[in-house]
Amino acid sequence: MEGQVIAEISIIPVGTATPSLSSYIAACLDPLKGAEGIRYQLTAMGTIIQGPLERILELVPQMHRAPFARGAQRVVSTISIDGRRDKPQTMESKVEAVLGRGP
Amino acid sequence: MEGQVIAEISIIPVGTATPSLSSYIAACLDPLKGAEGIRYQLTAMGTIIQGPLERILELVPQMHRAPFARGAQRVVSTISIDGRRDKPQTMESKVEAVLGRGP
Amino acid sequence: MEGQVIAEISIIPVGTATPSLSSYIAACLDPLKGAEGIRYQLTAMGTIIQGPLERILELVPQMHRAPFARGAQRVVSTISIDGRRDKPQTMESKVEAVLGRGP
Amino acid sequence: MEGQVIAEISIIPVGTATPSLSSYIAACLDPLKGAEGIRYQLTAMGTIIQGPLERILELVPQMHRAPFARGAQRVVSTISIDGRRDKPQTMESKVEAVLGRGP
Repeated sequence: MEGQVIAEISIIPVGTATPSLSSYIAACLDPLKGAEGIRYQLTAMGTIIQGPLERILELVPQMHRAPFARGAQRVVSTISIDGRRDKPQTMESKVEAVLGRGP
Repeated sequence: MEGQVIAEISIIPVGTATPSLSSYIAACLDPLKGAEGIRYQLTAMGTIIQGPLERILELVPQMHRAPFARGAQRVVSTISIDGRRDKPQTMESKVEAVLGRGP
Repeated sequence: MEGQVIAEISIIPVGTATPSLSSYIAACLDPLKGAEGIRYQLTAMGTIIQGPLERILELVPQMHRAPFARGAQRVVSTISIDGRRDKPQTMESKVEAVLGRGP
Repeated sequence: MEGQVIAEISIIPVGTATPSLSSYIAACLDPLKGAEGIRYQLTAMGTIIQGPLERILELVPQMHRAPFARGAQRVVSTISIDGRRDKPQTMESKVEAVLGRGP
């Protein structure tokens, strides 16, 4: 079984007149808040999400469309998905494995 | 209305013993064949897909999971989505606009 | 030896007032024109480039900075690099291998 | 002036026989250690790097090639670059701006 995947999503509103995107990005995070079965972490380059793949893909259109509701006319979103079946992984275990602190 | 988006998906099976991925990638394309309302084009770095966003996101898990059915234990997929609401766009119109041949 | 890599670059100017990016993208392609040892192909989602890795990475800052020269205040660029050492590959051979027409 | 950019790099060795990539990724981080003018942070989906663009692009081939030295025959790397000229940004300021804690 696949179980949880680790994903990262980056959302870029285009044609916003201002190069500051933080208020748009804050709105993109709203669908994640309180989403059942979902963990997430904001980074400087995107948002890392852990959860079942189908559940994450249900949230993607809501996140991708949030900037339109704030006036953007174009949005480019990128989602990376890391799924493995040989063993469970979490946002933390992936980092710890590289740092040599994993099991 | 958003209508059609243009997307690109790149799928990388990990731990495959061989660096040749073409048979895996061919299997990833199967869900696109005959998919209603979907157009696609294979490139050297991924597959470009045109269609409604929700329809494309229904196909993503099928494409992402195709390598598992062929024995891969881990898959990393990346999807980019370009959606705009000010005017319609197609795979061809985007290229033509850059080349100065668009309307 | 690594030889040629196949890469893809996608450049997004941010805060441009208009959602139409084609004139910016056209300017980003200028550094590729006539670049020695470089082949490239424009797609609906980016530009695929074939050539030696160091040569491509010399061109990346020129491409990434082209929108600033046209007034953009922020640019987000994404570059993917596919390098393999077991056998040579080209933009065409990668597509043909998936389509079952390769050697 | 552009000054510092914020980048993210993700490196995937292909054909490694094992789906566990952590020892390869650890080797990819070596060029960053002690690199002058560079700050970095490992995440579950990549490594975020802050520094001058040309300096980062000097490190990219070293990072991309580290898995070859450990036996991989193919490597796919993805680098995203966020550069802006209207105001300085750091890895921390980008996150804080979204969380509403920025200046």
